[in-house]
Amino acid sequence: MTIRVTVWGENVHEQTNKIVAGHYPKGMHGCIAEGLNEDAAIMATTATLQEPEHGLPVARLAQTDVLIWWGHAAHGDVSDEVVERVIEQVWAGMGLIVLHSGHFAKVFKRLMGTPCNLSWREAGERERLWVASRNHPIAAGLPDHFEIENEEMYGEPFGIPEPLETVFISWFQGGEVFRSGVTYKRGAGNVFYFRPGHEAYPTYHDANVRKVLKNAVKWAHSAAPRLTGVTEAPNVPVTEALEPLEERGPRLHHDGEEGFR
Amino acid sequence: MTIRVTVWGENVHEQTNKIVAGHYPKGMHGCIAEGLNEDAAIMATTATLQEPEHGLPVARLAQTDVLIWWGHAAHGDVSDEVVERVIEQVWAGMGLIVLHSGHFAKVFKRLMGTPCNLSWREAGERERLWVASRNHPIAAGLPDHFEIENEEMYGEPFGIPEPLETVFISWFQGGEVFRSGVTYKRGAGNVFYFRPGHEAYPTYHDANVRKVLKNAVKWAHSAAPRLTGVTEAPNVPVTEALEPLEERGPRLHHDGEEGFR
Amino acid sequence: MTIRVTVWGENVHEQTNKIVAGHYPKGMHGCIAEGLNEDAAIMATTATLQEPEHGLPVARLAQTDVLIWWGHAAHGDVSDEVVERVIEQVWAGMGLIVLHSGHFAKVFKRLMGTPCNLSWREAGERERLWVASRNHPIAAGLPDHFEIENEEMYGEPFGIPEPLETVFISWFQGGEVFRSGVTYKRGAGNVFYFRPGHEAYPTYHDANVRKVLKNAVKWAHSAAPRLTGVTEAPNVPVTEALEPLEERGPRLHHDGEEGFR
Amino acid sequence: MTIRVTVWGENVHEQTNKIVAGHYPKGMHGCIAEGLNEDAAIMATTATLQEPEHGLPVARLAQTDVLIWWGHAAHGDVSDEVVERVIEQVWAGMGLIVLHSGHFAKVFKRLMGTPCNLSWREAGERERLWVASRNHPIAAGLPDHFEIENEEMYGEPFGIPEPLETVFISWFQGGEVFRSGVTYKRGAGNVFYFRPGHEAYPTYHDANVRKVLKNAVKWAHSAAPRLTGVTEAPNVPVTEALEPLEERGPRLHHDGEEGFR
Repeated sequence: MTIRVTVWGENVHEQTNKIVAGHYPKGMHGCIAEGLNEDAAIMATTATLQEPEHGLPVARLAQTDVLIWWGHAAHGDVSDEVVERVIEQVWAGMGLIVLHSGHFAKVFKRLMGTPCNLSWREAGERERLWVASRNHPIAAGLPDHFEIENEEMYGEPFGIPEPLETVFISWFQGGEVFRSGVTYKRGAGNVFYFRPGHEAYPTYHDANVRKVLKNAVKWAHSAAPRLTGVTEAPNVPVTEALEPLEERGPRLHHDGEEGFR
Repeated sequence: MTIRVTVWGENVHEQTNKIVAGHYPKGMHGCIAEGLNEDAAIMATTATLQEPEHGLPVARLAQTDVLIWWGHAAHGDVSDEVVERVIEQVWAGMGLIVLHSGHFAKVFKRLMGTPCNLSWREAGERERLWVASRNHPIAAGLPDHFEIENEEMYGEPFGIPEPLETVFISWFQGGEVFRSGVTYKRGAGNVFYFRPGHEAYPTYHDANVRKVLKNAVKWAHSAAPRLTGVTEAPNVPVTEALEPLEERGPRLHHDGEEGFR
Repeated sequence: MTIRVTVWGENVHEQTNKIVAGHYPKGMHGCIAEGLNEDAAIMATTATLQEPEHGLPVARLAQTDVLIWWGHAAHGDVSDEVVERVIEQVWAGMGLIVLHSGHFAKVFKRLMGTPCNLSWREAGERERLWVASRNHPIAAGLPDHFEIENEEMYGEPFGIPEPLETVFISWFQGGEVFRSGVTYKRGAGNVFYFRPGHEAYPTYHDANVRKVLKNAVKWAHSAAPRLTGVTEAPNVPVTEALEPLEERGPRLHHDGEEGFR
Repeated sequence: MTIRVTVWGENVHEQTNKIVAGHYPKGMHGCIAEGLNEDAAIMATTATLQEPEHGLPVARLAQTDVLIWWGHAAHGDVSDEVVERVIEQVWAGMGLIVLHSGHFAKVFKRLMGTPCNLSWREAGERERLWVASRNHPIAAGLPDHFEIENEEMYGEPFGIPEPLETVFISWFQGGEVFRSGVTYKRGAGNVFYFRPGHEAYPTYHDANVRKVLKNAVKWAHSAAPRLTGVTEAPNVPVTEALEPLEERGPRLHHDGEEGFR
């Protein structure tokens, strides 16, 4: 079965900055999708901020098994309606992979419930990612560590909830560390945050980074049908109770009434 | 040291429903605060939806070590500005205890990042809470289980993230179960959700329930000073790197510039 | 790819008790394996306490992707050597599913590091399992809850570490609850504990129980090659450090020496 | 209330190695205890491998609120009986802090259920510890990071279960990272592992390290009375069921019988 991936790109610096455009002539999203499509089990397409509904109308998300999110300069331009739509699809079972500066994307902050902040430095320094969870599916086929010669530094404390699993931890040349690969479950959806990918460097051409993304897509993908009614709070009438039950005492709600929200 | 608690009450059904007013002539918030004030180490006061800024202006939250939240019929009437204010204080270290129908409160849903939904039935049935984490501070002084003779049923699946710890699990007469006491950390703030407390029943007069709330206040309270700048992402210039570092390659940001948000 | 499962059965009560023999003429292990083999992606065989090395010699474990463990009356008869062997294979990536009274099996207690105790009652009462983690792969294809009409009761507090995920929670007719499906990772191995399966009842003939076991096998199976040297603590000589490093200060160990254990 | 701490030291290299004896004339355990006793709320004493029952008879553990464990060269000399005794007291509520090379101590491996292995290098290199959990009680009063100028390196992957909380992550000069402060709960006992403390360096004289240990003692200490019967699995007779229950079907056990172990 082919996993359908939508790579969402903000697509701003690719249009305005020569360095970024040089690394990513087809956009960062284009490069990421290209890397994923090296794997026959994945079919990746792209969507960008500038398209109607940011390229993420309801029908598109319904056809997306795993959504990848890269944003940086224009987090504030993403409409709240699309953010809620994405979040509900994650809750319903869509996988989500958030990259690098996406730590401050509305979708990520909303799913985490925390500030998602960190310290940072743009000096093209060396990053070395260590696998903290041996044999984790997201680290499949990777050595115990790998390096990216030029990257932006992100440093702890990283304002996230305690992860389900810490897959990668980064070492930086300038003296910092960072939990650079962490997993979460939100509703029925698997969520993975992966740190590398500053737009000033050719990170998404790196073979190890591409390997991580392919692995992460397979990990995040749920074989189960998308849930419906994912925010509903169904009333169970007394007459349908699983065990014999007689109503006792007063009540506020009438039969068949919806609960307060 | 006295722990300063603000008990926030929606204060709607107490004004409009005779049963609720009968159980809680001083409001549910009043009853909860009264229970807490049985403990000399706690000083609890109240705030309600109807007050200016819902009784939670900046200065009030700054003086609040632990905030308790009860809401049901009027979640939608809570202003987003106050919600963000509360959330930032939790991230900065304020404890938060969310009660019963507060599972659908904006503050709780925002901190969890999940739908927080459940199934429910209002039949005055028996609830039995089991301690799942022996000797947890929130269960201090309680037996392995205790009962509430009349309560609303909440049933799994409960749409929350996997908790840090599952302290209580409820058994219901009609055949359901529910994770009725769960802990989280969000930023520097301790968060506890506690299920019992439907307004049609006198739950907050119950000695075991009062015991849980006193314990939870002490558990949620942080002795550390409230953090400032809790959403900031500080830039670390190359010249202040902890290890010798020379800048390499291109960059997007100028020295001293703020990052994108 | 076929998943190779070994179902380990203690095989004591099947030989000594007519009721158990009646439900399980081929042994409980035989019934469990039969249920798994309904799925073409699984190839399950059995091993028992009475065989040499309890049917689990090194070569057999090397060919086992997922081990299932059922024991009750004879936990103490399992040799410590086999226990260590099983545990090391779990650390190396073998999946492990522990059933029912296996909560007190040496392999489970060793992997958990906790007492794994609980309360219990043998009264043939009704158990209802609720799915607490919607769309979890182990709950695939199951309704939100299902019932087993006659089962032994296990009650909280269950002396386990906080699970990675709580997949099922059980309701019992007599008033107890229990975390009846919990996941862990130990080294590279996925571990799942599943509660139902008292030998006095025909539980492993139940379609929903069989569904859980099939799902759990697929979830526990790791596609990665089994790790080797899973307990080693390799020394990294200064000359092979990833960053330029000069040795400073005194040291206790000589080059190439093994560390203390 | 004073917290009673027993600092357990292996006390081998202090007796056989001049460098270690030079840093720690009263033993490492003596130095650690001295640091803790700077805090009026703590009363720390010591115990060593060479004493009868390794200085940890039943009565001593009963008087110990928090046990600190440092061992390296002689893990194998610790008797299994004392190990089991320590573990049961942790389950019953005694706090445990395991230091540095104690990652391979029997007590730690038994409580974790994993290999607890890592990579290492003894080169006196710089270690920098970053706080990953802002305002965690164990990091109280510490800056976001602190350095130890000469330490042994420990590198990921660290063979531990996913921690409850990751409090510290270390950066090493030679290029590695390590989760150097992690919390667990085992039964009713709080467990903290803290990485620094190689015997060839004066680490336990460091003010920040001493601060961490004082904080950790307060965090690990449980105010609740020590549990008894911590491994028992009590039978609940039908006649004492919390809900009306009639026995159905066959059973293996007689009334009042103990379960199998």
